[in-house]
Amino acid sequence: MQQARIGLIGLGTMGAALALNIADNGFPIAVWNRTTEVTRRFADAAGDLATRIVPTESLQDLVAAIARPRAIILMVPAGQAVDDQLQALAPLLEADDLVIDAGNADFHDTNRRDAADLPFRFLGMGVSGGEEGARHGPAIMGGGRAEDWDRVAPVMTAIAARADDGTLCAARMGDAGAGHFVKMVHNGIEYADMQMIAEVYGLMRDGLALESQAISDIFARWNEGTLSSYLIEISAKVTAARDPLTGQPMPDVILDRAGQKGTGRWTAIEAQHLAAPIPVIEAAVMARNVSARLEERRAGQDRFGAAPGPVALDADALERALIAGKILCYAQGFTMIARASEGFGWTLDLPGIARVWRAGCIIRSAMLNDMADALAQDPGRNLVLAPFFADLIEASLPALRQVVSQGIAAGHALPALASGLTWFDMMRTARGTANLIQAQRDFFGAHGFDRLDGADRHHGPWGQSA
Amino acid sequence: MQQARIGLIGLGTMGAALALNIADNGFPIAVWNRTTEVTRRFADAAGDLATRIVPTESLQDLVAAIARPRAIILMVPAGQAVDDQLQALAPLLEADDLVIDAGNADFHDTNRRDAADLPFRFLGMGVSGGEEGARHGPAIMGGGRAEDWDRVAPVMTAIAARADDGTLCAARMGDAGAGHFVKMVHNGIEYADMQMIAEVYGLMRDGLALESQAISDIFARWNEGTLSSYLIEISAKVTAARDPLTGQPMPDVILDRAGQKGTGRWTAIEAQHLAAPIPVIEAAVMARNVSARLEERRAGQDRFGAAPGPVALDADALERALIAGKILCYAQGFTMIARASEGFGWTLDLPGIARVWRAGCIIRSAMLNDMADALAQDPGRNLVLAPFFADLIEASLPALRQVVSQGIAAGHALPALASGLTWFDMMRTARGTANLIQAQRDFFGAHGFDRLDGADRHHGPWGQSA
Repeated sequence: MQQARIGLIGLGTMGAALALNIADNGFPIAVWNRTTEVTRRFADAAGDLATRIVPTESLQDLVAAIARPRAIILMVPAGQAVDDQLQALAPLLEADDLVIDAGNADFHDTNRRDAADLPFRFLGMGVSGGEEGARHGPAIMGGGRAEDWDRVAPVMTAIAARADDGTLCAARMGDAGAGHFVKMVHNGIEYADMQMIAEVYGLMRDGLALESQAISDIFARWNEGTLSSYLIEISAKVTAARDPLTGQPMPDVILDRAGQKGTGRWTAIEAQHLAAPIPVIEAAVMARNVSARLEERRAGQDRFGAAPGPVALDADALERALIAGKILCYAQGFTMIARASEGFGWTLDLPGIARVWRAGCIIRSAMLNDMADALAQDPGRNLVLAPFFADLIEASLPALRQVVSQGIAAGHALPALASGLTWFDMMRTARGTANLIQAQRDFFGAHGFDRLDGADRHHGPWGQSA
Repeated sequence: MQQARIGLIGLGTMGAALALNIADNGFPIAVWNRTTEVTRRFADAAGDLATRIVPTESLQDLVAAIARPRAIILMVPAGQAVDDQLQALAPLLEADDLVIDAGNADFHDTNRRDAADLPFRFLGMGVSGGEEGARHGPAIMGGGRAEDWDRVAPVMTAIAARADDGTLCAARMGDAGAGHFVKMVHNGIEYADMQMIAEVYGLMRDGLALESQAISDIFARWNEGTLSSYLIEISAKVTAARDPLTGQPMPDVILDRAGQKGTGRWTAIEAQHLAAPIPVIEAAVMARNVSARLEERRAGQDRFGAAPGPVALDADALERALIAGKILCYAQGFTMIARASEGFGWTLDLPGIARVWRAGCIIRSAMLNDMADALAQDPGRNLVLAPFFADLIEASLPALRQVVSQGIAAGHALPALASGLTWFDMMRTARGTANLIQAQRDFFGAHGFDRLDGADRHHGPWGQSA
């Protein structure tokens, strides 16, 4: 059998799906997993694709099975496992071989590995789409040297998703950790999208007393309109699904304790370093953390009673509120990417990123088409000020304000929707209240302040700090 | 003249005030500043205290002027300047000499310096209270070895603030960076307190159309009650002050662009690492960042019109809202400290920290007395569940809900007050909405979920991920 076009290490959920996708697209692929049994089971289950899959039982065999110059995809857990694997490969590879970390790496680690004196070439690659996307077409965000990306581009473009207009959802984002950075922000936005949907779900379940199937029908209707997206689509599916054990709607049997793998938290931390406010994502991370503290929430309810009560809102208002919240959240996310582009000396292509996210990945949505267009007009302009979205916000913001205001009055926890709105209300107010903060800071710390009239007197007549 | 009891390097605003405080308390102190002229001007201006101040013009002279074993306070800018100073002192000091970094150090740096092989002893010390506090009695949060703290405790306890009951506001928090960590959280809470006050100020200014003097009278009245605190006191003062140039109320001539030195951001970053939600502090940091983007806010107002409009709220409702918001914010802050205590292997004394914060520091307030008592009863219990504060929340939360709900409806930006409330509404709801998020995560990532009935079926019947 001919030598493999590419290799893959790590046959977990994502790695296995990606390997099948590559084989499915006609590329012979050599695979290896640290547990040989996993490799055998994977090959046995590959069916027709088995002819293009070369299972190997040692790193040496894997390397030997790949055509030179070699390309090997790493799909192992982020962190130490990646460094260990790179170290194990070092003696086996040649200078022009290429290793691609396609796991969920912290982009700082990818920067470090890119700068390290590895005896082979290295790319960091963010892959989004979950198991389904990895198998049938993920969004791929590459980072590293252009010539290295170009070498594997034929494979990546073949396996990647394509938007409805046929354009590819795979691209090199920039140097070093740029791909993993963009993937990280994608995941942060994913947290926020999911949280905003969960908040609207809560308003329907607890505020409007709707059954899961009725909620599903509403999500399904929304998926035909402006909110058309993968996350709304699957929200309709999971709310319609029934539990095989009890016959109840699935959401009603699932414990409300959300897990997380940390990429949302990474996004929040990096945004702080960049001084790029992303309050909707922060709220989503907070919500997952609080959801995990079940005992404390039960104690809170015992003491104070449950918060949520009935609300007088119709589904159309909830739909418009979600549209507004989504725009505000993405405006924050793209601003963060722009800050990183300056801060890290990358030249991130904002409209290009919006285009890559249009298909394959978890946050894929119709709205990203319009975002790509708006960012192409002026990448430096805040998305909320782009004419198309400014009009959409004008049409939908009153509903967001009504939903948040009434929802909070009725005791519903709406951290993400409320954070988007409070941020927007700051962003649209030329005369805010930070003048009081500046007065306080000058009073106790003699920090000084600027004046509205530009006059050259920067301290107050407070006495000790004047 | 006898040798100095202690030395101090760095005669900036805080350093000079601290040196005068030490001399004022009867301790001869040797001082040095890298710019000799600064040292001379400081000594010349010291008046009666000059007899206890030894100005020196070289590090060698400084070291020679201090009684052995020496203790030297560093009051230089955080970061590289501290490392440079430690390096410069290394050849001049003996093994049992002690250097105390009393600047605004990142506690990670203090941990690093504590672990480093310095040829002398080292303490990290957080000092709060601004210039005024440093001069007449700051709150002091020490970190390092107990025996080193004990050596300088006589000086620190003499210069520190005392609560009304006479107890000291100076203590060793724990090992290494523990003091600077507690100071960092203090500053994060300071950001949040100031932001919540600014939001209520905005409601009075823009929602109730009150003049600055009328707002000052309300702050002054609040300072007589549950909200009695330094920040409310100075809020009353700065809103009452008049601009010498124009005769206008001071706040009305100050630009609404808030500065920051980064400790609020550090707190937000560390809370993410600790998975300890502090949404009110995050909102305050966000608000300062957005306030700085003046041009964008002006563009936002040009496009969408200014947000804030009239509200029908009375001052008592605003007072109760601020009481509730403050309790929620502190509950988050103390929980973060508890997480750090576990996470870093410290044994932070939560009620002790509340006691240290009762006087001298910027966030000093009457409420911290009750917080110290509540934390003493059970440091592991969330502050909102302590009987005293649970009752206070029950009495004040309806006002917070009314203020946030109506304020948002009228377009006021209330990120901090809203973040406290949305967090609380999650914390009091045993059945939240994360079940939908878990269903989505299992659908696209086969992440699995727990069930309410505990049954052993952790995937949905979604098909590809079942």
